[in-house]
Amino acid sequence: MSKNIREEGLEKPVDVAEYLFRRLYEIGVRSVHGLPGDYNLVALDYLPKAGLRWVGSVNELNAAYAADGYARIKTISALVTTFGVGELSAINGIAGAYAEHVPVVHIVGCPSTVSQRSGMLLHHTLGNGDFNVFANMSTQISCDTARLNKPSEIPFQIDNALRECWIRSRPVYLMLPTDMVKRKVEGKRLETPIDLSEPPNDGEREDYVVDVMLRALHAASNPIILVDACAVRHRVLPEVHDLVEKTRLPVFVTPMGKGAINEGHATYSGVYAGTGSHPDVAARFEASDLVLSIGALKGDFNTTGFTYRTSQLNTIDFHSDHCKVRYSEYPGVAMRGVLRKLVERVEVARLARRPSIHVANEAQKRRDPSPTVTQAWFWPRIGEFLRENDIVATETGTSNFGIWETKFPRGVTGVTQILWGSIGWSVGAAQGAALAARDAGEDRRTILFVGDGSFQLSCQEVTTMVRHKLKVTIFLIYNEGFTIERYIHGMDAEYNDIVRWKYVDVPTVFGGTDETVRKFVIKTKDELDALLSDKQFNEASGLQFVEVWIPKEDAPRALKLTVEIGAKNNAKMED
Amino acid sequence: MSKNIREEGLEKPVDVAEYLFRRLYEIGVRSVHGLPGDYNLVALDYLPKAGLRWVGSVNELNAAYAADGYARIKTISALVTTFGVGELSAINGIAGAYAEHVPVVHIVGCPSTVSQRSGMLLHHTLGNGDFNVFANMSTQISCDTARLNKPSEIPFQIDNALRECWIRSRPVYLMLPTDMVKRKVEGKRLETPIDLSEPPNDGEREDYVVDVMLRALHAASNPIILVDACAVRHRVLPEVHDLVEKTRLPVFVTPMGKGAINEGHATYSGVYAGTGSHPDVAARFEASDLVLSIGALKGDFNTTGFTYRTSQLNTIDFHSDHCKVRYSEYPGVAMRGVLRKLVERVEVARLARRPSIHVANEAQKRRDPSPTVTQAWFWPRIGEFLRENDIVATETGTSNFGIWETKFPRGVTGVTQILWGSIGWSVGAAQGAALAARDAGEDRRTILFVGDGSFQLSCQEVTTMVRHKLKVTIFLIYNEGFTIERYIHGMDAEYNDIVRWKYVDVPTVFGGTDETVRKFVIKTKDELDALLSDKQFNEASGLQFVEVWIPKEDAPRALKLTVEIGAKNNAKMED
Ligand SMILES: Cc1ncc(C[n+]2csc(CCOP(=O)(O)OP(=O)(O)O)c2C)c(N)n1
Ligand SMILES: Cc1ncc(C[n+]2csc(CCOP(=O)(O)OP(=O)(O)O)c2C)c(N)n1
Ligand SMILES: [Mg+2]
Ligand SMILES: [Mg+2]
Repeated sequence: MSKNIREEGLEKPVDVAEYLFRRLYEIGVRSVHGLPGDYNLVALDYLPKAGLRWVGSVNELNAAYAADGYARIKTISALVTTFGVGELSAINGIAGAYAEHVPVVHIVGCPSTVSQRSGMLLHHTLGNGDFNVFANMSTQISCDTARLNKPSEIPFQIDNALRECWIRSRPVYLMLPTDMVKRKVEGKRLETPIDLSEPPNDGEREDYVVDVMLRALHAASNPIILVDACAVRHRVLPEVHDLVEKTRLPVFVTPMGKGAINEGHATYSGVYAGTGSHPDVAARFEASDLVLSIGALKGDFNTTGFTYRTSQLNTIDFHSDHCKVRYSEYPGVAMRGVLRKLVERVEVARLARRPSIHVANEAQKRRDPSPTVTQAWFWPRIGEFLRENDIVATETGTSNFGIWETKFPRGVTGVTQILWGSIGWSVGAAQGAALAARDAGEDRRTILFVGDGSFQLSCQEVTTMVRHKLKVTIFLIYNEGFTIERYIHGMDAEYNDIVRWKYVDVPTVFGGTDETVRKFVIKTKDELDALLSDKQFNEASGLQFVEVWIPKEDAPRALKLTVEIGAKNNAKMED
Repeated sequence: MSKNIREEGLEKPVDVAEYLFRRLYEIGVRSVHGLPGDYNLVALDYLPKAGLRWVGSVNELNAAYAADGYARIKTISALVTTFGVGELSAINGIAGAYAEHVPVVHIVGCPSTVSQRSGMLLHHTLGNGDFNVFANMSTQISCDTARLNKPSEIPFQIDNALRECWIRSRPVYLMLPTDMVKRKVEGKRLETPIDLSEPPNDGEREDYVVDVMLRALHAASNPIILVDACAVRHRVLPEVHDLVEKTRLPVFVTPMGKGAINEGHATYSGVYAGTGSHPDVAARFEASDLVLSIGALKGDFNTTGFTYRTSQLNTIDFHSDHCKVRYSEYPGVAMRGVLRKLVERVEVARLARRPSIHVANEAQKRRDPSPTVTQAWFWPRIGEFLRENDIVATETGTSNFGIWETKFPRGVTGVTQILWGSIGWSVGAAQGAALAARDAGEDRRTILFVGDGSFQLSCQEVTTMVRHKLKVTIFLIYNEGFTIERYIHGMDAEYNDIVRWKYVDVPTVFGGTDETVRKFVIKTKDELDALLSDKQFNEASGLQFVEVWIPKEDAPRALKLTVEIGAKNNAKMED
């Protein structure tokens, strides 16, 4: 086929790869994670001219984790991998983004349509001529899958996938064959931005739902607001903030929603997670007779093992694709429009506004006389160290539970993966988040808390932090292994032990230098106090690595409770 | 349900986990790779009493790679991961084992049958109540998938899966819910070993096929033998060796079959891979009028881009599930029985035995006067360093092509992943292989050749080598990035660059000490000569790490040819 015939009928021919990358830029992507492979190399040439930076990740799983973190800060992200080996390495990271409602565009460079049709025995295939098996796997963890095989359809497929990714806030999968990269498509479409607006609710239905809600709200004697993960992920925080501002009702967050509300706000009342909550917070929460629950994702680790002491009879649920008032369900009524109207129509004078609760930072109270850094003291102490607009990433393990007790200053973004809970994730996510902040032109600190066990899974992501000179401070909880697992089962089991690494030397082995990376080993409370008060430490512009010694049999209160309750549930179920 | 009712009718009740692990032991597993997770912890308690060692891997992908390497040395292996996060991290490694016919038993600890039935919103789920989505993914890369949900069926399911794994030499997937681990099953079955024998061919059909083959063989004027991957993986090497011994026909190996034949054997004639072969080898091979091709897996990288200059008219194919004589196909006729009868019935006197060819080691010839270590010289030079029974692992990249030119002494096992080609694999595989050799009671050296780029993906596997004090020598090809990719596309592209690590310090950061790990940086031919001749280096009993400097734009001949031909094929197909 000659070039001319190919371009026939196109007003402004552009190459497929250019089209794709310009669209990515348009929706906010600036850095693209991933690894090269011979099925994606030619496409990568197109990145710079679209204004995109190639991150040059160290492995695909880390790249996927990082893309997840990037999207949490910059709303959307992209990942490029190579067929089979690359994409499957990343699949756990993409599954996590799916579970946690994070929009990641996964682009897989794959063999040419010709070799696919002829079933060639190419490297990175299973050797059975089936070129769809990996795409089929990804379909289960993507909200759209597009095989870009026909130039005439490709621009539509791309636009549609990116729109789905954004609106449904979940990963999409694009399979780009090598022989499509340079094919021409209609560039004129690029003059019209992709329509990323959510389809509005049907007005009459929406009004009806809002009415039902308002009646309940005005009648309630102790209404409160609870903000959870999907409020963040589906980008309704502006509506939520307006609701809080206007109603001034006590507002709580879940562990997965932590950071969604300014914790210095007058009506901010704490982290609610059932039994694991601070007792005063739980008491205040559970005294309510109407919970406006926004974007709930009630997984076991977000609810201390399903221990909410509230009833659906006292709950209004807001979700991205439906709402629910007590037991009445409204499928297809999305929360954004409903929240907007609630804010407009709520009659503040008719609201029963009962007092909020303010639990003070307990760093002082939890400080025992021993020099040892304890979980009980560490997390509130960190609350005193954090600053406005920090990005705080935590890992599955003690840190994900400890952070409940850390007070976030205004504008702090919490980055956690509480539902999916893949360890190692936080190291990638912190890298992606830090890069996203920089790409957004924001001068924020990224502070990572990661267990020694988890760190080992994805340690090489530190090299990407070094490569891009990111502003990240890593606190590695050195407690000799898998403490969270010890609590679940096998306190002294060998399978919960790990090899002792020289953790603080990791960054310099991975390309950092003594000039670009600062390292610290902290064994006592006083050492930590000194470090956290140090000006240079607070204002570092590059990578810092802090190994914090915490006893191996120490765990945050909420973790112990979650484990206890989980064990009880299991025992109940198993006999 | 009370214990008594559960055990009713069982002659020798044993717990499910005990049953499973005793079966693994029975079929040859001694070490089990994987990571703990709360859905598999209780099962792990059963390992020691079954005589199994827990490896304590560092991440699941590396664990899968290692299980792959283990199985290549000890015939079969096992991997334990946790639901969702763990199993998906491993899935690329399992897909590789599937593609390359390696039997790995993948055991996934998953939520209890009760929580599965009630669709609980547990951690490590997608939050949609679907507990089958990951198993469905694995089904596509497993030859058997068993959900162990009903005690009465479990022993049968386990025995069947292990049998399938062994016989079909591919991964199987076992999903073990937490509430099944301690359920009782019939232990009496354990007194009868699992029948691992291959179902014999139908005698009459087999005789017929052997007859057809013998007629062709006796009539041929220049018959030869070619041994490929599936001969190794499907364990017919004893039959192949007998055939070579009896017929004394010239015998070649493919890159994936390298190591299958004693390269010192009188009729061993070299590595055949089409255009990429040594010219003398290619000439000798292509002069044949009948190729007995045993266990072929003719992927692009195994054939220098499909460049065999032979015809199906001159080929007899032996496979694990069918045979083929010229264009006549014999589905269901497995090679083992056929080979056995060929050996018995071939009339040596009627064979036209033409001379074999012996290409001498070219280390001297390839030695140019510069001090620089070149790819052309390095690989034959390594041939002089290797010893009988070494295990030689190589990685996708320059090393997988360079090794074609390395002469293997007798008993050397080649460990490569040429079809699947997932980089980072070799580091895990080398760990698994070294452990397997030790578990088999064999005192072998494991020598790994890995590119600097590939090493970065899975570097933490070195900690497992340290943990188990394995006898591994790592040669890291330091050539500043992805040389193989540079040749394919983007010689100077940024996406083919990587961060310069302090590679030789990796083992000590990951738990090694200056006593337990030896490290070397080699920049010249003389330095390499000296090292390879050093007695202590040759006889090391622990870990050694050698960084070898090779110019970034240097590549083995076969790699250059493969890339050239691939590019030509692509160009042809794309226009
Ligand atoms: C990919 C993956 N593999 C395994 C697990 C199971 N797991 C959950 S937490 C954990 C241990 C974490 O240990 P560490 O990071 O040291 O945390 P801490 O000691 O602070 O609890 C493990 C193995 C998991 N969640 N994800
Ligand atoms: C998991 C995975 N990601 C990406 C690739 C694509 N790929 C193949 S080889 C290679 C570069 C290997 O570089 P290196 O190990 O340094 O080898 P060398 O420089 O010796 O060629 C890459 C990125 C792959 N095969 N597997
Ligand atoms: Mg730990
Ligand atoms: Mg390299």
